[in-house]
Amino acid sequence: MSLNVSFNPRLLKRYLPILDWGSKYNRQAFANDGIAAIIVTIMLIPQSLAYALLAGLPPEAGLYASIVPIMLYTVFGTSRALAVGPVAVVSLMTAAAVGQVADQGTAGYATAALTLAFLSGAMLMALGLFRLGFLANFLSHPVIAGFITASGILIAASQLKHILGIDAGGHTLVHLIESLWVHLGQINWITLVIGVSATAFLFWVRKGLKPLLKKAGLGPRLADVVTKAGPVAAVVVTTLVTGVFHLDGQGVKIVGAVPQSLPPFTWPVSSLALMQQLFVPALLISIIGFVESISVAQTLAAKKRQRVNPDQELIGLGAANIGAAFTGGFPVTGGFSRSVVNFDAGAETPAAGAFTALGLGIAALFLTPLIYFLPKATLAATIIVAVLSLVDFKILKTTWDYSKADFTAVLATIILTLLSGVEVGVSAGVILSIALHLYKTSKPHIAEVGLVPGTQHFRNVLRHEVRTTPELVTIRVDESLYFANARFLEDYILDRVAEDQAIKHVVLMCPAVNEIDTSALEALEEINRRLADNGILLHLSEVKGPVMDRLQKSHFLHDLSGQVFLHQFAAMKALGDVTDEGHTTPPENPPTSPEEAA
Amino acid sequence: MSLNVSFNPRLLKRYLPILDWGSKYNRQAFANDGIAAIIVTIMLIPQSLAYALLAGLPPEAGLYASIVPIMLYTVFGTSRALAVGPVAVVSLMTAAAVGQVADQGTAGYATAALTLAFLSGAMLMALGLFRLGFLANFLSHPVIAGFITASGILIAASQLKHILGIDAGGHTLVHLIESLWVHLGQINWITLVIGVSATAFLFWVRKGLKPLLKKAGLGPRLADVVTKAGPVAAVVVTTLVTGVFHLDGQGVKIVGAVPQSLPPFTWPVSSLALMQQLFVPALLISIIGFVESISVAQTLAAKKRQRVNPDQELIGLGAANIGAAFTGGFPVTGGFSRSVVNFDAGAETPAAGAFTALGLGIAALFLTPLIYFLPKATLAATIIVAVLSLVDFKILKTTWDYSKADFTAVLATIILTLLSGVEVGVSAGVILSIALHLYKTSKPHIAEVGLVPGTQHFRNVLRHEVRTTPELVTIRVDESLYFANARFLEDYILDRVAEDQAIKHVVLMCPAVNEIDTSALEALEEINRRLADNGILLHLSEVKGPVMDRLQKSHFLHDLSGQVFLHQFAAMKALGDVTDEGHTTPPENPPTSPEEAA
Repeated sequence: MSLNVSFNPRLLKRYLPILDWGSKYNRQAFANDGIAAIIVTIMLIPQSLAYALLAGLPPEAGLYASIVPIMLYTVFGTSRALAVGPVAVVSLMTAAAVGQVADQGTAGYATAALTLAFLSGAMLMALGLFRLGFLANFLSHPVIAGFITASGILIAASQLKHILGIDAGGHTLVHLIESLWVHLGQINWITLVIGVSATAFLFWVRKGLKPLLKKAGLGPRLADVVTKAGPVAAVVVTTLVTGVFHLDGQGVKIVGAVPQSLPPFTWPVSSLALMQQLFVPALLISIIGFVESISVAQTLAAKKRQRVNPDQELIGLGAANIGAAFTGGFPVTGGFSRSVVNFDAGAETPAAGAFTALGLGIAALFLTPLIYFLPKATLAATIIVAVLSLVDFKILKTTWDYSKADFTAVLATIILTLLSGVEVGVSAGVILSIALHLYKTSKPHIAEVGLVPGTQHFRNVLRHEVRTTPELVTIRVDESLYFANARFLEDYILDRVAEDQAIKHVVLMCPAVNEIDTSALEALEEINRRLADNGILLHLSEVKGPVMDRLQKSHFLHDLSGQVFLHQFAAMKALGDVTDEGHTTPPENPPTSPEEAA
Repeated sequence: MSLNVSFNPRLLKRYLPILDWGSKYNRQAFANDGIAAIIVTIMLIPQSLAYALLAGLPPEAGLYASIVPIMLYTVFGTSRALAVGPVAVVSLMTAAAVGQVADQGTAGYATAALTLAFLSGAMLMALGLFRLGFLANFLSHPVIAGFITASGILIAASQLKHILGIDAGGHTLVHLIESLWVHLGQINWITLVIGVSATAFLFWVRKGLKPLLKKAGLGPRLADVVTKAGPVAAVVVTTLVTGVFHLDGQGVKIVGAVPQSLPPFTWPVSSLALMQQLFVPALLISIIGFVESISVAQTLAAKKRQRVNPDQELIGLGAANIGAAFTGGFPVTGGFSRSVVNFDAGAETPAAGAFTALGLGIAALFLTPLIYFLPKATLAATIIVAVLSLVDFKILKTTWDYSKADFTAVLATIILTLLSGVEVGVSAGVILSIALHLYKTSKPHIAEVGLVPGTQHFRNVLRHEVRTTPELVTIRVDESLYFANARFLEDYILDRVAEDQAIKHVVLMCPAVNEIDTSALEALEEINRRLADNGILLHLSEVKGPVMDRLQKSHFLHDLSGQVFLHQFAAMKALGDVTDEGHTTPPENPPTSPEEAA
């Protein structure tokens, strides 16, 4: 029995990029990928345990979330260096979302995390298949920067309980601080010593060790890689100390028994009600995860003059999350620090990811007994040190100087994320930046323009020395004309002509008008009618091709009292009293200097 | 005791327009306003009873809603001809909103209607005081047109039960039809005869009587006014017939006993929970009511070269609604048909409204016993005939021809209003039109331009015969650069230079760039860096004043590899190989014909 399937190899390569790079795979690439994988694996073991803790899940979930997802991304992803797995912000968002529907430590909590990963994966994949990746563009850069900063603070605050050895909780800064304050009497001093030492050590590794290593003659790359292995050292030392002195008997919370197993098969779909509850959080996680991942992927690709395909990236991340959902994980995405390590360590193809998965699989099978005595405080320290590097308030200064609207959006995002949690914060940032953009376009900049002497160019009469004619007023609207500003334009023009009896012609100069929608068309018809009632002709100039195509489908050009000019200079020549006042003199007898004529 | 209050008379006149027109009031204006008031009063009596029925309230509520609100609008409003009171669409929205929180006929229902009017009044007043009237502009013309059409259909369908004499209900077309179908067996045939006759009579009055009257020698205005009195004739005849034959004993539903009273004092604020439930409906009613009212007011003002002040109109309508809330009414706004009648009948000042209120007050005190036998079917007939004139599907054809985006928004508004009710319909229309606008701006039109020979003007190479130079590519982005399209621009430019090795200069021509936000600035910095890596210089030309001001606050101009040119022709002269190829020849030795030189 033969199945006759016709298929398009190009299409197959688009959806399975592995076919593209896999066919050219060679020994050199294998060696490079292998070395990168070993380094990334060493770095990922403590990191994945820590992010599981942050997400409120047992440590093994972090390992599981790093194995199958990485392999699936290898097949479907387009970035050569992206390392997929649990990341700080997404883990925090997972904790916030799942914490709303289940209590931490219950079976329902783990299932909800799987459901969240499944929903997020399905959404990412759908966005990719329908090529809706552009939706992520509605998250403005400043909003992302503010959100990441605020999330970093929230994450660090959420880990303080592990450093202090107390029970506390909460998903907003106020709740976290309140909860820490209430339980402050329960501080476990040994835990505190371990936690603070680990944190101090890791900060030193990050800030102090690297210059030291460089001085010692290590290359900057190698110094970087050694630095990144700092958390492993902290894990080894604190685990040994805790194990040797049996500090768990003194109240130091440890990771404890972790099953020795490859990722288990898990079923992520439970109740429809749960899926409905997690729908919005999953969407936010998908978008934030995608934005984080695509920025990393594009930054790294640019360094090697490669390109990533955003829609295929969505499919890759979708597959990774669905993989996480079926293998005991939780939502994942492309992480910044691990991808940079992967890139710096020389990873050439996504195969490096597959080898990393292999390494983590071995760790899950054989190494878990070794971390029985690992203090949770150590993991919390690695998280705190990692996320504090995300905290950067510079964006507030930058946007304050450059754009008050962007500043407002960032400030709102930061404050709301801290005070009301990640979901409210990022949603408010998106809505506010869209609202501010719409507000600005609803009250567009309108300039009255005149001829710049010696050119055929027209500029704002208030900013440039230009020539004008009393009976001809040229109005340049610096915005597309659409429903939100149609009435504004109508009011502006009618007010302008009401105060000036000399006007015989109004030219609407349209180089900045990229669209005229139905509402604006009605406004223009009204303006045309009202000006005609006053004996004033309305003209258009510099109407763009696509806008003109559209206008030709309407009655407007037929009803227009004046003409449409290809460019403003032609309008001035036809309508202005030019010969008397000599406006066209400069272009005809240009007073050009030699340089200008060159 | 003297109180020393310093006040600004201009400010007082802004908030109390009555001080302006009141000081110039004379006998002629009084006579004109009086005549208009008599005509409008006669028209308003059946109309206000009918709209109370539509809102699910007792008939007297319609009279009450027309008395104090009209007087308050007289004091605070700026339109000379606007007649405020219950209108069809707002009454329908009231029925839909109040129907969700209380059962028709209960005391809670009437209270909820008062609360709704109070909330709506407070919102309108707040919008006016904070000058937020521009928010109404986000309701695009096509969405309004679609919404009014769909509402007209819903209203007509909701009145069929009165024509058929059966009990039915529902706030969506499907529910209405279903409910009518279920109760079809209960048809009261006498009611049906009255209802159908009244409807047919009123249609004839509207379509057939006016030409007849004109033929008989009446002036077109008088013919119009007589036509508008048609409902009064229908009311008188059907009331007489019903009373004489005691048809109410045969199951014909009548208006019955209506209290003889001036508007009572009512307290609109009951529970906080109720106010929360009615918050969104009140907001929608406020916006729809304001949009309807301001369009009527502006249309009528334009005919007499007057202007209305939108923010003061909000205050006027807010006061009217608060007045309705405290005097047994329900939400009101400026109505189209009554305002046109008022205008055509010669109303000169808002005093005409006050006189109308006086007339309705007299009616409420003395005439209500006369309408005891008025069949509800007659009121339903006046509603149906009035609203069917609102139904106009032409907007679908217009937008289909002109703009598919607008068409989509209209179609969605119509379908969702019919199938899911007024609130969902209008909200979806607003959200969809904003989303489609954002979508369009997120994928802007980008043109590569060249010099139009014989001018200094640059146009699209694909649309015009223009001159270009291989090493210089000029890209004109037809959109403001902001977060939603920043990445799109980056991809476009980098793809464009990747495919063409000859390029040495990229000029970004910015006449259509009305804003560059922080996200776009970062994208430009990235483009500048990446082009520089490839040995290509990035230049800007025709950057607008406000955009340039902003850029000067950033590092970008300092980092920019190329220059900023005031106009594109200067960029071409400086960068293009112009002397060799003779691009600048035309402007220097213009081949102008005599007309062109004129």
